[in-house]
Order: sequence, then C-alpha cells, then structure tokens
Amino acid sequence: MTTAKVWSVKRPYNGEPTLDDFVLTEEVLPPLKEGEILIEALYLSLDPYYRLFPVQDGLPGEQVARIIESKAPGFEKDDLVCAHAGWRSQSVINVNRPLRFGIKVEKIEEVTGLSPSLWIGAIGMPGVTAYMSFMERCDPKEGEVIVVSAASGAVGSVVGQLAKLKGLKVVGLVGSEEKCRYIKEIGFDQAINYKEENISAALDSIAPNGVDIFFDSVGGYISDIMYGKLRDKGRVLLCGQISAYNQPQPKVTNWSMTIVRKELEVKGFYIFSPVNVPEFPRVRQALIPLFQQGKLKAKEHVTKGFENMPKAFIELFSGSNFGKAVVKA
Amino acid sequence: MTTAKVWSVKRPYNGEPTLDDFVLTEEVLPPLKEGEILIEALYLSLDPYYRLFPVQDGLPGEQVARIIESKAPGFEKDDLVCAHAGWRSQSVINVNRPLRFGIKVEKIEEVTGLSPSLWIGAIGMPGVTAYMSFMERCDPKEGEVIVVSAASGAVGSVVGQLAKLKGLKVVGLVGSEEKCRYIKEIGFDQAINYKEENISAALDSIAPNGVDIFFDSVGGYISDIMYGKLRDKGRVLLCGQISAYNQPQPKVTNWSMTIVRKELEVKGFYIFSPVNVPEFPRVRQALIPLFQQGKLKAKEHVTKGFENMPKAFIELFSGSNFGKAVVKA
Repeated sequence: MTTAKVWSVKRPYNGEPTLDDFVLTEEVLPPLKEGEILIEALYLSLDPYYRLFPVQDGLPGEQVARIIESKAPGFEKDDLVCAHAGWRSQSVINVNRPLRFGIKVEKIEEVTGLSPSLWIGAIGMPGVTAYMSFMERCDPKEGEVIVVSAASGAVGSVVGQLAKLKGLKVVGLVGSEEKCRYIKEIGFDQAINYKEENISAALDSIAPNGVDIFFDSVGGYISDIMYGKLRDKGRVLLCGQISAYNQPQPKVTNWSMTIVRKELEVKGFYIFSPVNVPEFPRVRQALIPLFQQGKLKAKEHVTKGFENMPKAFIELFSGSNFGKAVVKA
Repeated sequence: MTTAKVWSVKRPYNGEPTLDDFVLTEEVLPPLKEGEILIEALYLSLDPYYRLFPVQDGLPGEQVARIIESKAPGFEKDDLVCAHAGWRSQSVINVNRPLRFGIKVEKIEEVTGLSPSLWIGAIGMPGVTAYMSFMERCDPKEGEVIVVSAASGAVGSVVGQLAKLKGLKVVGLVGSEEKCRYIKEIGFDQAINYKEENISAALDSIAPNGVDIFFDSVGGYISDIMYGKLRDKGRVLLCGQISAYNQPQPKVTNWSMTIVRKELEVKGFYIFSPVNVPEFPRVRQALIPLFQQGKLKAKEHVTKGFENMPKAFIELFSGSNFGKAVVKA
C-alpha cells in the first residue's frame, strides 16, 4: 500500500500565489489494475502557465518519474517516464488514457550525456515550445535582429540560442546583471537588464535600424516599448504573457495603427493545442542532438524537496529563479 | 493664366474635423515647364486616412483629372490621369516626379463600361487595398467564415464580394438597415446592423463554430467583441482603424492571452508601403475584368461641387455616407 503526497490549492488565487494558498495532503493509492503503472516523481516541472488553470481541476504539472510497479505491457519497473501527473509524489496512471492536454504518459529512452530532467525542460515542453514557435512560426532570416524577453528562462534561453545558430543578431531582456552575463555566455549578442537600463535607448544603440522579431512571453509595458521598436514587416511571437497572469486583464496601449503602418504580424503560439501536441516527438528528435553536441545549453534552477513546490512556484513570478524551474523530489 | 482653388487646413484637427478647420484659397498657377502637365480635377477621392497626416503637409488626396495642357511627351490634352494632387481644382504636375507616397501621375486607359471615377475607388486605392489585403494576406479558404467591418464602404464592400467569389460565408457589419439590404444585394450572406443588434449574439447564431477571418478597418469596441468570436488559428487583418482616427489613442482590452491560446494571427496591411505601391498595376488588371463582367459591383457616394470637399470628408466619420466617397468637381 502506497501513500502519496499531493499538493493542491485551497481556493482561487487572489493575484500572486502565496504559500497560504497551497495545502499538502496524503492519499492512499489503490492497487494497480491492468494497464496501470505506479510511478514515483524524480523531477517535477514548474511552469508559469499553471497559474492560468482553474484550481478546482487540480494543479497541472509534468514530472519525470520512475516506475515502481507495472501492470502495463511495455512499461517495466525502473523505466523512466514523463507524465502530466500534477503535483504528486506518487501516482497510479493508466498508460492508455490521455492525461492533461490529451497527452499520455511517455517512456523516456536514455540519451547519452543528457539528464532525464531535461524531458520536462529543454527537450520537454519549454524546449519544444521554443523550437516550434521560433523556428517554425517566426520565419527567421540570417542577419535579422531578434529581441527575446525572459531570455534566461526555460523558453527564452533556447529561443536565443536557436536564433544565434540561424545567424540572427540576438538581444535578450533579463532582470539582473548575473542573468546578463549568463545569456551572453550561452551566445546572446547583447543583454539588456530591464530593471536597470532604459530598454528603448539601449535598443536604439544596439539595433538602430529596428527590430525584426520580438519573441514575447512576458507582455506588459515591455511589449508596449517593443511595438515602437519594430521595423516594417516586423513579427511578434506571443507564447505567453507572464506579466499578466497574476492580475486582472489590464488595459494596454492600442497598437493597431502601428500594426497597420508597419505591416506587423502578431502571432500566438500555444504548445498544448491539438495541432501542436502530436509534433512533440519530432521536435524532441531535432533538439536532442543539438544538446548532445553542445550547440545548445540548458540551465536548471533546481529546488530540492517535494515539500518546497509552492515556494519554487511562487519564485517563478518574482524573477528570482534563473533557468528552467525544477523540483527534485 | 489659370487660377486654382485649393482646400487646406488651418490648424491641427482637434478630434473630429469640423467645417471651420478648412479654408479655401486661390492660387495662380505658373506656366508649364518641360515635363509638366496642367490638370483639372473631375473626381476627387475622400478617404479616412487623410485624417492621419499632419495638416502642415497639405491635404493628401487622389483625383481623376483631365489634362488641359501638356509639355510632357506621352501625355496629351484631354487624356485622363490619376494623381495624388491633393484637394485642388487645378494643378501643375511634373510627370517624372513622385507625388505622395512615391507615386507618380498615371494615365488612365479607357475601359469599356467602367467610369473613370473607379480609378480612385473600386479599381483604385481602396479596391487594390481590398484585393491585396484579403486575397494575398488572409489565406482565405472555401467554407470559412469571414466578418467584414465597414462592409458597405469602399474597401469592405470589395472584400466581402471577393470573399463570396472565393466560397466563404460572408458576414458584414454596417450601421443601418439600408446598408444591410445593400450588402446582401451585392452578395454578402448575412448583415449585422451594429447600431441595432447585439453583434455577439448575432454571430453566435450566424457562426456557432466561430469566425475564421475578421477583416477590420474600424477597430474599437467591435474589435474587442471579435477577438472573442475568433476560432483557433483565426486571422485578423487590420487595414485601418477609423474609429480611432479622431480620438487620442485609447486604451484597449489586452487580448494577448487570447492570441496565444487560440494561436491567432494578427496582420497589418498598409497600401502605401514601398512594397505594395509597385503592385498597383498588377492588382488593377486583376480587378478590372471582375467589374466588367459584373462579378464585382461598386457603389459610389457622390457629392457634387469642389466647394463641398470638407463637408463630404466629415461625413466619412459619421457613417452617413454609403459606398466610396467621391466629389464630382
């Protein structure tokens, strides 16, 4: 008989999540039925998008886990899997049933040199998001200028490195000097510390002819500045708006006429759409060799202990974490 | 010696243009030099975009004119031309020099069955705008649902008819019952009178599965409603924002997360960009047979008398005109 620890949320968030919103309970798991596996979390993902889902549906979240017991053919004890199992230390999962977003549990094949934790990070959802949204939606061309917001984060850091491989001039927006140094280390041409520098003036000097692509996962006043910096036929890729997740929908400046006059193209990307989900395996296969060959690098912000999940989640919104947020159970 | 009448604006507009903003003067024209022609306006165009240009640069505007005298080879007395000559009854123009937007004066070849006034309307700038922005930017597919704002106007009416020819279900937004009847006459499937009906409820019944394309030249609260009605992968084409021309830039709802979650694509189109201007002749040649064969129809709102230019211009923003606004000199 296995007892699982499970984090849940007591009530709808009121603005920023606080420690008091979360509650840890225990749950006795039933014995396995045919087609089911019992898994134990090794690494749990923390992603800003969790904030957007109704709390009564349970906390979403992917984990890399080890199989403890299996009654499902093809899934053996000690195999590693990746599963949308939520904030749980142990789970019973039917391998044939879709979990969140229509995605089933997936076996992780060992890849030389790469930590299994990357399956929830740089070669998991955030890395796949970066690859599909930038490489396959932004029409990047050598010599163009791209500005990436949240550039040291799980998605932004991969976007910037891919852009560099494609021959673009890559500018990252980050919130500290340490993050500036880091993104330059992994290949960004320029870093702007938005907390210290005037973004507009910095860009006028870095990219006097304007910006071709703005890769935006933050929104808010930074987006406002960026619309003014885009060139004719400039492109904006929206893959998230973390600045808006903890507040009621704010009013924003109306950039419609700028979109007209510059013939801008503003595109949204949602990794969990039914069109994108089936593309995961293909994109992973494109990413894996890039990390193995050292052409892409991944940074993880690891918090130890399942009991620290809420604390690590809250840190996502303060900008105090740095790299892909992972909890090591 | 020719004396021209010229409209200009006394001071920057304060909100909606008023009759008092405009002043009519007379100007004695110099004798022609080599390469110049003297033209007399027959039809003057009135387009909402004039409102956006600094008044000290003079009133922009295209006209269909007759050549009165010529010192330019290839341009003969009594030939018709189309020229960005502004709000002037007569003008001296150098045929080799670009006028507004880098566009030179252009000779109009007579086309059987079509009024020369169409060269500033349905087969001029507004018609070319409609064709390029809809046919070549919206990726329209048979069976899709398009909603067209300002649907009885110079651009919207052509977009709707083109969409019908492409096999789309076409819904027009207009401001009167008379305009509803008109757009249905020219082939729109459905008309919504936004002054009388609840747009949202009307669309839920007309297009229960959502809208694929929103063709927007109005903006404001109607755009706000429309973002909520778009389907996944829906497209918005912005070719103008007439609702915003007479007011300071308003704050609008932040639709960023809707753009992400539905993977929307929002594109701007600016007919006078250096990329689009050279495409005019090609697109005109595509439009002309469609009008000759009666597959497209054009409605003009003709105001008589050069002295009525300001009045007719002001009417553009009240919605009291109907069809392409033209002044017959």
